[in-house]
Parts: sequence; C-alpha cells; structure tokens
Amino acid sequence: MTDRSPREQQDTQTSAAGARMKAREKALKHALLQAQRDLATRDYPVIIVLGGLPGAGKSELVHQLNEWLDPRFVTTSAQWKHSDEEEDRPYYWRFWRHMPPRGRMTIFLGSWYTQLLYDGASGRLEPGHYDQQLKRIRQFERMLRDEGVLLVKVWLQVERATQQRRLTEDSLRLRHLPASARAWAEDYAAAQRAAKTVLQGSDGPEARWQTVDADDPHERNLIAGETLLQMMNAHVARSAPGIGETAAARSADGGRAAPSQALATLPRNLQLGKQEYRALLREQQQRLQKLAWQAHDAGRSLIAVFEGWDAAGKGSAIRRVTAPVDPRLYRVIQSSAPSDEERAHHYLWRYWRSLERRGRIMLFDRSWYGRVLVERVEGFAHLHAWQRAYAEINDFESQLAEHGSIVVKFWLHISPEEQLKRFREREHTPHKQHKITADDWRNRARWSDYEQAVLDMLQLTSTATAPWTVVAANDKRYARVHILQTLCDALETALGTQ
Amino acid sequence: MTDRSPREQQDTQTSAAGARMKAREKALKHALLQAQRDLATRDYPVIIVLGGLPGAGKSELVHQLNEWLDPRFVTTSAQWKHSDEEEDRPYYWRFWRHMPPRGRMTIFLGSWYTQLLYDGASGRLEPGHYDQQLKRIRQFERMLRDEGVLLVKVWLQVERATQQRRLTEDSLRLRHLPASARAWAEDYAAAQRAAKTVLQGSDGPEARWQTVDADDPHERNLIAGETLLQMMNAHVARSAPGIGETAAARSADGGRAAPSQALATLPRNLQLGKQEYRALLREQQQRLQKLAWQAHDAGRSLIAVFEGWDAAGKGSAIRRVTAPVDPRLYRVIQSSAPSDEERAHHYLWRYWRSLERRGRIMLFDRSWYGRVLVERVEGFAHLHAWQRAYAEINDFESQLAEHGSIVVKFWLHISPEEQLKRFREREHTPHKQHKITADDWRNRARWSDYEQAVLDMLQLTSTATAPWTVVAANDKRYARVHILQTLCDALETALGTQ
Repeated sequence: MTDRSPREQQDTQTSAAGARMKAREKALKHALLQAQRDLATRDYPVIIVLGGLPGAGKSELVHQLNEWLDPRFVTTSAQWKHSDEEEDRPYYWRFWRHMPPRGRMTIFLGSWYTQLLYDGASGRLEPGHYDQQLKRIRQFERMLRDEGVLLVKVWLQVERATQQRRLTEDSLRLRHLPASARAWAEDYAAAQRAAKTVLQGSDGPEARWQTVDADDPHERNLIAGETLLQMMNAHVARSAPGIGETAAARSADGGRAAPSQALATLPRNLQLGKQEYRALLREQQQRLQKLAWQAHDAGRSLIAVFEGWDAAGKGSAIRRVTAPVDPRLYRVIQSSAPSDEERAHHYLWRYWRSLERRGRIMLFDRSWYGRVLVERVEGFAHLHAWQRAYAEINDFESQLAEHGSIVVKFWLHISPEEQLKRFREREHTPHKQHKITADDWRNRARWSDYEQAVLDMLQLTSTATAPWTVVAANDKRYARVHILQTLCDALETALGTQ
Repeated sequence: MTDRSPREQQDTQTSAAGARMKAREKALKHALLQAQRDLATRDYPVIIVLGGLPGAGKSELVHQLNEWLDPRFVTTSAQWKHSDEEEDRPYYWRFWRHMPPRGRMTIFLGSWYTQLLYDGASGRLEPGHYDQQLKRIRQFERMLRDEGVLLVKVWLQVERATQQRRLTEDSLRLRHLPASARAWAEDYAAAQRAAKTVLQGSDGPEARWQTVDADDPHERNLIAGETLLQMMNAHVARSAPGIGETAAARSADGGRAAPSQALATLPRNLQLGKQEYRALLREQQQRLQKLAWQAHDAGRSLIAVFEGWDAAGKGSAIRRVTAPVDPRLYRVIQSSAPSDEERAHHYLWRYWRSLERRGRIMLFDRSWYGRVLVERVEGFAHLHAWQRAYAEINDFESQLAEHGSIVVKFWLHISPEEQLKRFREREHTPHKQHKITADDWRNRARWSDYEQAVLDMLQLTSTATAPWTVVAANDKRYARVHILQTLCDALETALGTQ
C-alpha cells in the first residue's frame, strides 16, 4: 500500500482496472528493485533526466520512483536555485557535482535542459544561442554514453486542461519558481513550442527522449517506471565488457608512422646564466604578483597545466610560479592516485571537482591529459576511450575558457640524455631518492611510444582558447623563466593591460 | 637555492651567519621531507594553524613550507572570502570542508581564529561572545586532538616598526583584506590586545600556541619549520596504537547495571486502525507540505535523525515524510558504508559534508549515532572514542541549532518479538529477502548490549535544542503518524506559526 500525496489520491481510479494496475505496479516494483540490485554490481551509473511542463507531475514521479526503488542507491538532484559557488564556475560544474558514481542512480529534476527551456519559452533566445546550447548538450550526453552511462530521458507530456487544474491545486510550488521561468509556467503554447525545439534538437538515436503521457498520474508513473526498467535491462545486455580493446589499442600504436620532427627540432640548448636567470626570474615574478591580483579583481581565473617527461622539472617550475603569488590566490592540484570516489566517476569528474571559484590561479601538476598519455601508452584506457578523450578534453577546456578562465598548457621537454642524467642524480642524492621509482625507468623504456602520444596530444588539443606551449627544459633556468613569461603574457593579453 | 619573493630577498642576510643558516635550512628540509613521508603511513593528519598580525609574514612562511615539503601532501586552506554556500551552513562547515585526510597536512592560513581576531580588534565583541567563541574553539580543538590529529598552532609575533615597513611594501594584499579587518590591519595596539586575549583563551596544555619571532624572515621560517618538525616527531612517539582498548570497552560494558526501565516501560501497543490512519496521515502530510515551504522561506532547515532497531520501519517512515514534500526541498542521507575518503577523516566529516543549504529538509536514515550504537557494541570504536562521542555529538548538534536548523531525533522502538516476526516475514517475501542479512541476526543476538547503548545515547544526547523522541513502532501506522506529527509540531514551534 503506497501513500500518495493528497493531490494524487483523487486522480487514482478505484475500479476493477485499478486492481489490474495494482498487480502491474507490484510486478514493476519487484523488477525495478531487482534491476537496481544488479546495477550495484555494474561499472556504469544511471542518469535519469526528467522533463515536462510545470504541472506534468515530475515531482510526483520522483516520489513514486523513490518509493519503488531502494532509496540508498538513488539520489535526486533538484537543480533549482544556483549558489554563487555555482555561478562562479563553468555552467556544467553544477551538473558534474551531482553525477552518480558507478552502480548508482541520479534523477535530475531540473537539468542541463532547464534554463534553455525557460529562456526558449520567454522568447529571449537568439536562434544561434539555441544551436550552441543544443550542441553542448549533445556533446555532454555523447560523452556520458561513451563512458557507458545509461541515460534515460523522460518527457512528461501534459494537456493544457490537466496542467491548469494541477497548477491551481499546487500554487505553493509555482510561487517558488524563479522569475526566469514565468513564461514557461504561465504560457502553455510558448512552453510547448520551446519544448518541441529543444526535444527535437537533443533527440539522437542513442539519447532518445521517452515521451510519456502524463494526464493520468497512475498510468504516467507506471509507464515511466516500465520504461526505466526496460532500458536498464537492455543496457545490461549491451554493455558486456569490450574484451580485447586494450590489445587493439597496442597494435594500433605499433602500426603508426615514426614520430614527426616537431619535438626533435625543438631547440634543446636554450639556457640562461645564473645572474641573468636571477634578474629575469625576479622581473617576471614581480609582474606575476601584480597580475595575479588584477586577474582576481577582474574575476578571471588562470588555469595552467604542467605536463612533461619524468624529471623535466614540473614541480620546481610550479614552485617558481607560486613563489610571488599570494597563497590566497592559488592552488596546486596534484594528479596523484585517485580515491575510490574518483575512480567511480568519469575521469574528468575529479578535475571538475577541483575547480576553484573565479579569480583564482589553478596549477595542475599533471592533469586530465593523463588519459591520452600514460593511460594510452600503458593500456589503462581502452582504444576508444583515449581516442574520444581528445574531443572531450577540448570541450572541457572550451567550457573553462567560455567562463572566462585563461587556459595555458605547458609541455616540459627534455632529451632522453638529460633525463638519464637527472635520474642518476636523483638516485645518488639521499633526499631525492624517493622521487625516482621503478615506474620512472619503465616509462623511460617506452620513450618513443610516449613521444607519439605527446605529438598526438599537441596536435589534437591545441586550440585557440587553450594552446600548448612546448618548453625547452634541458636548462631548468631557461624553462622557469619561459613559463613565467608565458603566463604573464597570457594574463596581460586577457586582461587587456598590455 | 630557493627563490624567495622580492620582498623577502632584501631581508636575507648574506654574511657568514648566512652560510650557517643555509646548512641549518638544508638539514631542516631533509628532515621535514622524511617526517612527511613517515606521516603518509600514519593514521592521523597534521593541521597547521598560522596566526599573526598582517605583515608578520604568514604568506611568506606558507611559501617556504611549500618549498621545503613535498607539495603533493600539503594543502593550503586560505580562508578569506566566504561564499553563500558557506554562509548558508553552520560556521565550522567552512573548516570541515578543508580538513586533511589521514597522512596529509593542511595549513590553515586564516582559520577559526580569524573572524574572532578581526572582531576583537575592532572592539565589536561583547565579553560574553568572546567566551562563547573561545569555548567553541577549545571544544573543536579537543575533538581534533582526541581523534589523534597533530595540531600545530604557530603565532608570528612582529614588532610595530617591522609591520609598518612590510605593509608599505605590500599594499596590494592589504587592499584586499575584508572591511571587517580594518582595525586588525591598521591599529597595531588594538590588534595586539585582541591577539593576547584570544591566544590566552585558546592556549591549553595540549593545544599550545608556538610563538615565533617574525621580525627576521629567514629566522622566522627556520624556527617555524623546526617547531613543526619537532612536533611531528614527538607526535609519532606519542601516538602508538592503544592496544587492548577494545577489550577494555567490552569489559566495561559487561560490568554495568541492567538496562533501566525507560525503554521497557514504553507503551508498545499504541496502534491505529486503517481508516483512522489514512485520515491522520493525510492531515499531517498536508500540514508538512505547507510547513516545508514556510521553513524554506524562513531559511530554516529541518534535520531529522532516524535511528531504531533493525526492521523498526525507518525507511518506510521516511517515505511517508518525504511523500508530501517537494523534492527540491528534501534530501534523504543514508549512512551506508563510508568511502575511502570518508574513512580517512573524522567520523563526523561525512555528516558535515552532507549538510544542505538553509531552508532544506535533511532526513538521516541512520546517522552519526552509529558511533555510540553499532561501533560501540561491536567494538569498532575504542572505549575512549565512543565515550567522548557523546560530547562531540552534542556540540555538533548545538552548532546546527545555533545556525537555525530544527533538529529532531527519533528512536523507533519495537519489541524483540515484533522484530522476530518482521525478520521472518522478510525471509519469506521474495522482494524483501535482500533486506535481511546475517548481520541482522547477529545484532539481534546482542539485544541487551544494544539496549544499554540506546539508553546511554538517549540519556547523554537529549538536549533542549536537539531532543530525542522515542517512537512506539510495533504498529507502523501509529509510528508514521507520530513521526509526522512530531516533525510538524517542531516546525510550527520554531517558525512561530502555532
């Protein structure tokens, strides 16, 4: 026996058909619980996006799902009022922070569609903006699906008369809609028009909208529940592990042409004398000290990615960058071993999670590029996974840039000979011995595989808004000054203080 | 060779004494790295609180520590501007969110002292408020220490002349201090007076302030670093695991008097007929629907804790509470197995982490009381750990209440006979079989141990602001209505809409 909200109870039929519905509901409930327990053992999450006009019964359906399912493994994300912490980060951060880990389920009641629908109904949207937003949505959903996520998008379709009746009955909730949702809530025709455009633009073969008639609440809940069940069961069948992909990735690597000359031709002997270094370093550090505050005041973040060969000097370069910056303004983010929470999410999740608010400097000591470097070369990521990562990363960085962040990426390049020298030095210096491990020697043995991965990365992820800077790092002094200078230049250009 | 900020370089001596300092620094650096690597294997974190007047060199010391230490295992928390997400939660949430996990280190540059010092210097503080804040600080730090945290509190003492010179040189940072810090930054005498009061009030034998003379920057950094090193090494010696404590906890239990009658005398036969139940449930749910919005509009949160015997009906009672509430307004928080991130923190961390913003309803399906129930009885927590938990929990809940949250706690009580009936029913109902495990039978066998733990909990954590309600739950209908009614009454009283 379920206890529905007062409003729901009057809609429920009590006829003989009602008894059949009860049996159907009982069967559905058991099957859903079973599917959910099975999900807990799978390596993907389920994301349910609920859409529909106000009064279609989204909240009521959420209640019903929470009652049918084991609530320990379902979360509802009610995107609604946004905090300043959310406004201070790229738009999708608010969704990433509510992503379910593997084996779990999140219902998005309000989602990446909500604002677009509000704006569409109000007539505030330029056609170009529509297209841009829809493109972003499609990219986002493709990325989720590529990662194995089961994405269930349910649209509750409601008649005007039903809607009017329900809204009159539930004025409380309506009163709490944001101002931007006025047309969405009050103008049925405009809302339907906006919904049609958005649904058509986001309805791909792999992210189909499931339209559910929502006039009869009991029927609505059953159909939505049955749809969810069907999709969960179908997904189990589809997502059998892709055996042999890793092997395929290796052989694909093996068949490629030799590395191009791009890295080989980099001048490796750029260097600075001690006196010159000190003067230049000091000059650039003083510049950065001021620029860091200016960027803060302008609400612009600087996101600097440090990648490079082992022992290329990433850590010590980062310390030269942070030295002049007020500790309130920067954070160094290490890509050390992920926690189990991080491992249970998309690989970009931990980086979304680490984003600071506007006006800060974030220095990534290794980064999301691990996916197309170490994970590719060592076969930790499947062929398809690292291959699609280039586009995913470009999209991620373009979201950072659109939000006003200045994105700068460094590849610290040293020669194999220089690396060897530094490895030996580390081995012979007591306080540096912990910095050199068997992994370092193993990676070194695969230098040319890594070189190919680096070249692909530079080629495929150098964009206008997030360009790579290859730094000749055989001479640490030169590298440090070059990095500081590049960062200062990027800040000056972006802040228009040149 | 370190690269200090421009301002630091001029202070550095270049004499023969300088050479000795260099050797001292080198030795310190190696020893710190060693201590830090050792820390990574320990089951406690290090928290460094840095205090001092503006111009004392807190930021510079942070730079230096970041340079000496392995930055992968140190985080700086620069508490500074507070977000609305922080303002929307109890004051200490902003510190809890930056707590280091075991084996790591966090430097609090700005801490639970900062606002108190600002207010103190400005003369805005009533003596009573001072005392209250200092008491909270002492409680907080005692809790950290009890958990094994190494707390290093360093106060940088600076002369007026040095301060004036440094502030003139670094006007940028000064300009970004919040308005409430004006007296703190500009009135040396007032700031010193405030610091003296606060330091004296928070200087216990186990959370000693380490005062470091900060006029010479190089000496300041060395002394601070050496103090940190010394404390880290001393802590290793002190924190040898307390063998036999668990056994002691068990025997302490065994020697206690029989459970009092408080639970035994609870009328267990309160029940409701089906018709009456439906009418009452509906009435209370309609009440809650409105009150939930009123609480939201008033910015008051409702925090409801559900504890009870296995199979007492917590989950189904929670569903009756959420049924009428808009899904945007509530969240059910399950105390399932902690993640590795959660396990690496104080047991209250996961609950601080789960707090929603103002005006929401949080329903805890089991809670922080696990520490004094299952962890106590099963010996998962040491005697001292669960014994001090009563005070820690009271402090936690009083912080929730002070922030405007309405805290209601339910113990769902059933008789052993009723539990047995429900266990058997679960075993014989296909879709309920997953709800009954060997653990349930094991717990049942220790009924009287649990009963003692429940009685202690009710006695020691029933406070005026966070009272327990024992619910006679042999009849589920009665229990659900009783719970809804208690919640509504608590909301009405708090909102003054009675």
